[in-house]
Amino acid sequence: MLELFIGNKNYSTWSMRPWLVLKAFDIPFQEHFIAFDDFHLDRPFKQSILKINPTGKVPAVVNGDLVVWDSLAICEYLAELYPDKTLWPSDLQLRAQARSISAEMHSGFQMLRQLCPMNIEADLSTVGIKLWDEHQGLRDDVARIEQIWAKRPSGESFLFGDFSIADAFYIPVVMRFISFQLPVSASGQAYMETVLKLESVQQWIEQAKQEHQFVPVDEPYRKAP
Amino acid sequence: MLELFIGNKNYSTWSMRPWLVLKAFDIPFQEHFIAFDDFHLDRPFKQSILKINPTGKVPAVVNGDLVVWDSLAICEYLAELYPDKTLWPSDLQLRAQARSISAEMHSGFQMLRQLCPMNIEADLSTVGIKLWDEHQGLRDDVARIEQIWAKRPSGESFLFGDFSIADAFYIPVVMRFISFQLPVSASGQAYMETVLKLESVQQWIEQAKQEHQFVPVDEPYRKAP
Ligand SMILES: N[C@@H](CCC(=O)N[C@@H](CS)C(=O)NCC(=O)O)C(=O)O
Ligand SMILES: N[C@@H](CCC(=O)N[C@@H](CS)C(=O)NCC(=O)O)C(=O)O
Repeated sequence: MLELFIGNKNYSTWSMRPWLVLKAFDIPFQEHFIAFDDFHLDRPFKQSILKINPTGKVPAVVNGDLVVWDSLAICEYLAELYPDKTLWPSDLQLRAQARSISAEMHSGFQMLRQLCPMNIEADLSTVGIKLWDEHQGLRDDVARIEQIWAKRPSGESFLFGDFSIADAFYIPVVMRFISFQLPVSASGQAYMETVLKLESVQQWIEQAKQEHQFVPVDEPYRKAP
Repeated sequence: MLELFIGNKNYSTWSMRPWLVLKAFDIPFQEHFIAFDDFHLDRPFKQSILKINPTGKVPAVVNGDLVVWDSLAICEYLAELYPDKTLWPSDLQLRAQARSISAEMHSGFQMLRQLCPMNIEADLSTVGIKLWDEHQGLRDDVARIEQIWAKRPSGESFLFGDFSIADAFYIPVVMRFISFQLPVSASGQAYMETVLKLESVQQWIEQAKQEHQFVPVDEPYRKAP
């Protein structure tokens, strides 16, 4: 069976992506949790993950002798293993567009990433107001995301109609928007509501809230839970 | 015919990747050059590229009505358009690994990226010595890249035997290593020599050196050519 190694559900955006894809497409897998710490080489997180994944990071998928790492490569691998489940849109042109926005997310949106780390259990709305005010780069990132979301075929649909890998890449962003209460258009809010209705998303959020582990390196804004 | 929009060959690592793939696999395309400037919204670079690509960045591929952007998504699209050319390794497991290291490059190696921007015509060896000395993060990035390269099947081969998209993702790194003269193991040097023998790589370098355009925003270390 596929094994997926992930970090803390409260913080780990990269882990969330393949987990959502596996759950939403009903692909059987065994989940291994490696708790975050301060990521020093001699501490348990690195000691555990480096035995599996040469990058020393989560997520990673193990399938027999094969190790696949990096959330995007993992999703591509899953799409190849289950061609009938259409993890990417089945139309060649839509698939190219779905990959464009996923790869754009993978290497971009540095300001959003840096200023608004995912923290599902936290209410960081006060910080959000201040960040929004002070950082043009953050406002630009959110504007571009809104532009991407607005291209979906209808207000209630996922980015390419049915749920696909592309949504899994933008759902961690939804989590950030919620924690920091960033201002989002009505159309953006409709997309957020659509993804929040997904059972896989609800499960992840539920489990994130039950972790109760405060990881200081992922907490630029809070001193305690 | 496919149209590829790229930036300056001397500086644009992201443009280099799909260009190399197109050339190395003999895929016909029309090349459009959009000269770098300071990337302000009212200047020619943004004015031109925003007409084509909503991200306002290069590279982008246009095929009839379809626009595909982001170097990784473009390469995936090319692999789909030309399945017989094996742009990715043909073996499923090797393909998963090739995607792992390509996606790792796509979103990682921030220190190398930030400290050692590509600048093919420049000799930045003096800067390189200083950076190497001062930045553990840079040494870590290079060590990880060496580890990736060392996994190739033989000293003279490409990363997965024949040239693939994965090499196109690591060739801009070779360019950085050369300009900054970063210390590389004998095995790493052998890989660098292999890629430098590629006709497509030689052409790119040749054309980069003929550009003679000094772009201040891409020049943290030089005051003039
Ligand atoms: N590009 C990678 C990034 C993975 C990543 O950075 N994971 C974080 C956790 S969310 C990690 O393991 N950090 C440990 C570290 O940086 O040492 C992916 O998409 O999987
Ligand atoms: N992840 C994108 C990055 C593209 C990118 O950042 N391109 C640079 C040139 S190398 C650019 O167009 N910069 C203009 C800007 O940032 O405004 C890709 O892989 O294509």
